[in-house]
Amino acid sequence: MYHFQCDYSEGAHPRILERLQETNMEQTVGYGEDKYCLDAALKIGSAIGRHDVDIHFLTGGTQANMTVISSILRPYQGVICATTGHINVHETGAIEHSGHKVLALPAVNGLLSADAIDNIMKEHFAEDGPEHTVQPGMVYISFSSEVGTVYSLAQLKDIKGVCSKYGLPLFIDGARMGYGLAAEGCDVELSDIASLADVFYLGGTKQGALFGEAVVIVNDALKKDFRYNIKQNGGMLAKGRLLGIQFQTLFEDGLYFELSRHAVAQAMRIRDAFRAKGYSFLVDSPTNQQFPILHNDMLESLSGKFKFSIWQKVDENHTAVRFCTSWATTAEAVDALVASI
Amino acid sequence: MYHFQCDYSEGAHPRILERLQETNMEQTVGYGEDKYCLDAALKIGSAIGRHDVDIHFLTGGTQANMTVISSILRPYQGVICATTGHINVHETGAIEHSGHKVLALPAVNGLLSADAIDNIMKEHFAEDGPEHTVQPGMVYISFSSEVGTVYSLAQLKDIKGVCSKYGLPLFIDGARMGYGLAAEGCDVELSDIASLADVFYLGGTKQGALFGEAVVIVNDALKKDFRYNIKQNGGMLAKGRLLGIQFQTLFEDGLYFELSRHAVAQAMRIRDAFRAKGYSFLVDSPTNQQFPILHNDMLESLSGKFKFSIWQKVDENHTAVRFCTSWATTAEAVDALVASI
Amino acid sequence: MYHFQCDYSEGAHPRILERLQETNMEQTVGYGEDKYCLDAALKIGSAIGRHDVDIHFLTGGTQANMTVISSILRPYQGVICATTGHINVHETGAIEHSGHKVLALPAVNGLLSADAIDNIMKEHFAEDGPEHTVQPGMVYISFSSEVGTVYSLAQLKDIKGVCSKYGLPLFIDGARMGYGLAAEGCDVELSDIASLADVFYLGGTKQGALFGEAVVIVNDALKKDFRYNIKQNGGMLAKGRLLGIQFQTLFEDGLYFELSRHAVAQAMRIRDAFRAKGYSFLVDSPTNQQFPILHNDMLESLSGKFKFSIWQKVDENHTAVRFCTSWATTAEAVDALVASI
Amino acid sequence: MYHFQCDYSEGAHPRILERLQETNMEQTVGYGEDKYCLDAALKIGSAIGRHDVDIHFLTGGTQANMTVISSILRPYQGVICATTGHINVHETGAIEHSGHKVLALPAVNGLLSADAIDNIMKEHFAEDGPEHTVQPGMVYISFSSEVGTVYSLAQLKDIKGVCSKYGLPLFIDGARMGYGLAAEGCDVELSDIASLADVFYLGGTKQGALFGEAVVIVNDALKKDFRYNIKQNGGMLAKGRLLGIQFQTLFEDGLYFELSRHAVAQAMRIRDAFRAKGYSFLVDSPTNQQFPILHNDMLESLSGKFKFSIWQKVDENHTAVRFCTSWATTAEAVDALVASI
Repeated sequence: MYHFQCDYSEGAHPRILERLQETNMEQTVGYGEDKYCLDAALKIGSAIGRHDVDIHFLTGGTQANMTVISSILRPYQGVICATTGHINVHETGAIEHSGHKVLALPAVNGLLSADAIDNIMKEHFAEDGPEHTVQPGMVYISFSSEVGTVYSLAQLKDIKGVCSKYGLPLFIDGARMGYGLAAEGCDVELSDIASLADVFYLGGTKQGALFGEAVVIVNDALKKDFRYNIKQNGGMLAKGRLLGIQFQTLFEDGLYFELSRHAVAQAMRIRDAFRAKGYSFLVDSPTNQQFPILHNDMLESLSGKFKFSIWQKVDENHTAVRFCTSWATTAEAVDALVASI
Repeated sequence: MYHFQCDYSEGAHPRILERLQETNMEQTVGYGEDKYCLDAALKIGSAIGRHDVDIHFLTGGTQANMTVISSILRPYQGVICATTGHINVHETGAIEHSGHKVLALPAVNGLLSADAIDNIMKEHFAEDGPEHTVQPGMVYISFSSEVGTVYSLAQLKDIKGVCSKYGLPLFIDGARMGYGLAAEGCDVELSDIASLADVFYLGGTKQGALFGEAVVIVNDALKKDFRYNIKQNGGMLAKGRLLGIQFQTLFEDGLYFELSRHAVAQAMRIRDAFRAKGYSFLVDSPTNQQFPILHNDMLESLSGKFKFSIWQKVDENHTAVRFCTSWATTAEAVDALVASI
Repeated sequence: MYHFQCDYSEGAHPRILERLQETNMEQTVGYGEDKYCLDAALKIGSAIGRHDVDIHFLTGGTQANMTVISSILRPYQGVICATTGHINVHETGAIEHSGHKVLALPAVNGLLSADAIDNIMKEHFAEDGPEHTVQPGMVYISFSSEVGTVYSLAQLKDIKGVCSKYGLPLFIDGARMGYGLAAEGCDVELSDIASLADVFYLGGTKQGALFGEAVVIVNDALKKDFRYNIKQNGGMLAKGRLLGIQFQTLFEDGLYFELSRHAVAQAMRIRDAFRAKGYSFLVDSPTNQQFPILHNDMLESLSGKFKFSIWQKVDENHTAVRFCTSWATTAEAVDALVASI
Repeated sequence: MYHFQCDYSEGAHPRILERLQETNMEQTVGYGEDKYCLDAALKIGSAIGRHDVDIHFLTGGTQANMTVISSILRPYQGVICATTGHINVHETGAIEHSGHKVLALPAVNGLLSADAIDNIMKEHFAEDGPEHTVQPGMVYISFSSEVGTVYSLAQLKDIKGVCSKYGLPLFIDGARMGYGLAAEGCDVELSDIASLADVFYLGGTKQGALFGEAVVIVNDALKKDFRYNIKQNGGMLAKGRLLGIQFQTLFEDGLYFELSRHAVAQAMRIRDAFRAKGYSFLVDSPTNQQFPILHNDMLESLSGKFKFSIWQKVDENHTAVRFCTSWATTAEAVDALVASI
C-alpha cells in the first residue's frame, strides 16, 4: 500500500547513496570540518547568491530549531510564532526545555502577519512594568508553512520590516524550503530568503537526504561561537562529512530544486483531481502537502488503498486529511491515487 | 492620593511588626528550621484541619509557583492553566525558564473548567505519536483567580475528578486565598482546599504580611526533598524565622481570615457603589478586586483623586479598570471613593 | 547557650526595625520602584563614590548569584570560581540549574589567582576544537571569601588584568563585603571594588539587615533588562520598599561599616585568645570567621557552652571549627568565650 | 597520510551501506517505529541475553548521555562521574545545560571506584543541611573508559553494590563498548553489563556504523515515556530506520564483536611495538586507544608520517600521544606504523 503519509518515508536520492559509497573508506577529520562540508557550504553559498554567511549542518529539524533559537534569545525572551508553528505544537516543548516561552500568535492558513508581530511588540512595551512578562526576542516562521502555504515576497518584506523596527532577528524554518520555493505562484527566490532572514535553514530530511538540515547564518551578530551551541545541544555529528556529502550532492546541478519541483508537480495532480471532483480543502496549499476534506465514506474507501494522515475532524461526516508528496513520489502512485479519486 | 492599585501597597499588619521587634535579638537556627516556623506550621495545620502535610515558607508568589511546578513535572511535561493564569502572563516565563511549557486553556472569567482539562488530556493521548507534543503533567488554578472570581465547591470537585482520572496533581495558587475564602457566596472552606489540592499555598504578601507564601504539600508523593528545590531556586531565606513569625501571627486568633473579610467587605462597598450608578463590570467578582467599566470622562475624573489600575480598553469610550482593596484599606478611603462615584 | 554558628542568627539592626515601623502604613508602588529604593541606591552610590551604576535589591545570596551569573553567560559558557566558592559548593547547583557549568579551580585559602584564570583560558583556546568544552565566560570571586580571607588590592588588580585580557566580566560576591573591607590589614576600599568589578553586591543578610543584597552593576553592557532577569528568577519582591528601607538605613551615617568593624573586632578577640593559647588555625582569617583547630577534648568542652560549626576533621584527634561573629555579637558573649578558651 | 587520530575517520562497514542501498526506496513509518528498528532491538536483545529491556536508537553519544541523564535525575540532583568522564570534559556542558551538576570524582586511569562513590554519598547525607548541596542522583561510568581502560567484573560489581546501597541508578556509556569487551584480559561479558547497569548504550559511531548509539534501558522504573525525552532533546530521527538498519547489520552474525576484536588486535600490535622499543605509556590500555609517551624527536618524526592526537605534555621533552585503531584500521597501515617505530 503506497504511503502518502509524510515526506520522509523513503531513504535518500540514489545519487546521495552513491556518493556515500564512493567516499566511504576515505579518512577525514570529524565534526563538520572536512572538505565535503566545506564544499557543500560553497555550493549552498552559490545557490543563495552570497558567500558571506556561516553554514552549519545539523541532523534534524527540532534540533536545528532549538539550537538556533536558544543561541539567539536572552533568558527572559521568547520567540514569536504562529499557533500552528512546528516549535509550538510538534517538538515536545524543546524550546521551553531550553528555557524560552513560545509566544504563539493566531495565524491565518499557517502564515504569521506583520501586524500581529507589531501588535504584540507594541503591547509589550506599552505595559506598565514590561519586565513582568516575557519579552518577545525574535520571530520564527516556516517556509513553506506547516499547512503547505507560502508567504508572498511582499508579506515577507512586511514581516522583515516590523522585525527591523524592533530589532527582532527573523528565523525561517526551511524544513520544506524547496517545496515552498517550487510552489505554484510563488514569487520568492532563495536569494530573497537569504536577504530577509537573519538565520534560516535548508531542509534535507524531507527533501531528498537521509537526514540533515543546513543552517545558514546571515546576520554577522549571530555567527559567533555557534559551534559551541551545536555541540552542547547534542547536534554535532562525529562524521560530519555525511552531512557535507549529502548537501554537496543536493546542491550540485540543481538537484535540490529539481526534486522539489517534482514533488510539487505530483501534489498539484492530486489537488486537481480532488478539485475536479468538487472536494473542498482545509487550506489552499500550492505545495507538496494537500488537505482535502473527505466524506467519511470516501475516507474509508481511500484508506483501504493508500496511507495518508488524518488531520482534523471537520464535522460529524467530514474529515480533513493530508496527502504528502516528496522527491520520491512516483508518478505511478499518483496515477493510481488520481484514478481512485 | 489613596492607592487602590494593588493589594501590596502597605507594609504589614502592625501585630507582625511587633512580633518581629520582640524577637529581634533572639538567636535562632537558620533556613526555616527554627521554632517560629515550626509553630507557624502547626497553626496552619490547625486552620486547615490536618497535620499530615508538609509546610514550607517561601518569599514570593512567582518563586512559589516555579519551585512547586518544577518540582513536580518531568522534563517533557507541561502545566495546564487558564490563559489568564498568573504563571502564563505575569511571571516573565519563570515556568518556561525551568524548562516547562505552560499549556494555557481558554477560561471563562478566569476559571478553568473540568471539561477543558478532560479534552486536552483526551486529545493528547489520542494522538498518533503523543511523544511529539508536550505531555500535560499537572493542573494549576488560582483561588481566588487573577480576575477576582472563585470556584464553587462543585467546580473544584469536578476539576479534582478529572485530575484523579488522569493522575494529574492539582496545584492551587493561593496568593489571594483568604480573599477567595471570604468571597460573597463562597461555599469553599480552607479544609476543602486541603482535601482537593495536592499542593497549595496561603499567600502572605497580599494578605497582611511583609512578604511570604506558605506552601502546603498534601500529597505524600510530592513531599520528598522539597527543601532542595527551594534552595536551588534561590528561595530559602537565611533568617527563615521572619516567615515563621509572620505566619504564626496571621494564623493566631483567626487574624488571616479577619483581614480577608475586611478587605472583601470594603470591596463590596465599592462594587455596590458602582452598581448603584448603573456601571457594568468586566467580570462579576465577589472578592477584593473589582473591575468596573468606566466611561473615559469618569476615568479621568476618578484618576485625579485615586490611584487604580487601567486593566483593558473595552471600546473607544470605555475602559475596564481595577480597584483593589486589602487588609490595610481604610473605611475612610472607601467612603471617599464611594462619594466620588 | 550563645550561638557563634553563623552571622545570621538574629533579626536586624534595631534602627532598621524602627524605620519599617515608621513607614509601615505608607502606600508605595511595588517591585523596587519606590522612593526608598531610589534613595537607598543614591546612598550606596555615594558610598562607592560613583552614581553611573545600576543598583537592584534582591532578597538573598543564592538568588543574587544565580540571577547575575545567568544574565551574563551565553548558554555554552561557564563561570570560573574557586573550588571553595559558594556557588560551587553551597547553592544546590543553582548555577547548573540555570544551565551553566561551574568551572572550579583549586584555590589557596579560598582565594583564586590571576594565574589560574590565565591558565584555564590559555588551555581552552589552545585546544583543537575548543567548542567541545565549556567556554569560560566570566569570573566569580567572593570578598571576603568563604573562609574569611581577603584579596589584597594588588591581587584584585591582577585578576582584573587577566579578565580584561580575555574579555571576562568579573563578578564579586559581597555577601560579607563589609566584613572583608573591615579586615585587619585590608588595603581594598569599596571604591576599588566598584572600579574593578563589572558587577558586585553588598550583602545585607549577614551584615545587619533582615535580608537582602544590593546588586551593583558597573559595566554598562550588563545593565540592559536586568529587571526581567530578577523577575524571571523569582527574586522581585512585591514590597520592594522593604529592601530600600533596609539599605537606606545601613548606608546612612556609615552604619554598614560601623557594624562590620564591630564584628571584625570581636572576631579578632576570639582569634587572639586562641592564638595566645597556642592553637593553630585552618586558615589565617582577618575577618569575622575564625577557624581554630581544636583537640577533641577542647571541642567537647566548648560545645557544652557555645554553639559553633564543625568545619572539617583534621586528624583523628583534631577538628577545625568555625566561630562567626556579626554586627549583633555582644562583647559579653565574646568575654565569656575568651574566658572559656 | 594515515589517520590514527580517532575511531571515526571513515564511513561505515560496507555491509551497512549495502543494506541502506537495498532498502532505500522502501516506504516505512518514521521515528524509530519501523520493522528495522524492531528487528535490530530483537537482535541486540539476543546479544545481551534478555528481551525485557527497552531499546532506543539515538544519533550520537553526547545526545545519548544528555537524554538519559536528564531523564533520570530530579532537578536538584547531579551525576557522579570520573573527572576524565566524557560528560565532564568533552560535551560542552550538555549535562549542565540540562540543569544538572556533574559531580566529578578523582579517578585512577579513568576508572571510578566504589569507595569514591560511597564516600561522596556518606558525606552528602552526613551534612547538617544536605539540601544546601547537590544531591548525587546517579552514577555514570564509561566502558571502555575515555583512556582506554576497562573495569574488571569485580570492580563493576562493587560499583553496583554501592549504587544499590544508595538507590543510585548506574548508567554505562558504551560509546566504545565493543572495544572494551574485546580488551585483552577483560572478564566482563555483554550480559554482565546488562545485569549490572540500569541503562547503558552500545556505541555505533565509533564501532562501524555511520552514526548511532543503541540505548538499552534495563531498569523498568526508567522506561516510562523515554520517547518524549528523545524528541524533546532533538534526538528523534525522522527516518529512524537508518539506525535500525545499521544496528541490525552490526548485530547480525556477530559483526559488532568481530569488528571490535579486529580493532583491539591492531592496537595491541602498536602497543607491543612501542613496548619492545622501551617506551612507557601514560596509561596501560588493553583496548583500541594507546597512549605512548614520546620524546619530542620521535613525536616530530612520526607526525611526518601519520596523524595521531597530542594528548598531554608530560615534561619538557616528552609528550603523551594517542593512537586510535578502529573497525576500519588496515593491517597494512599498522605494519607501516610498526615499521616506523
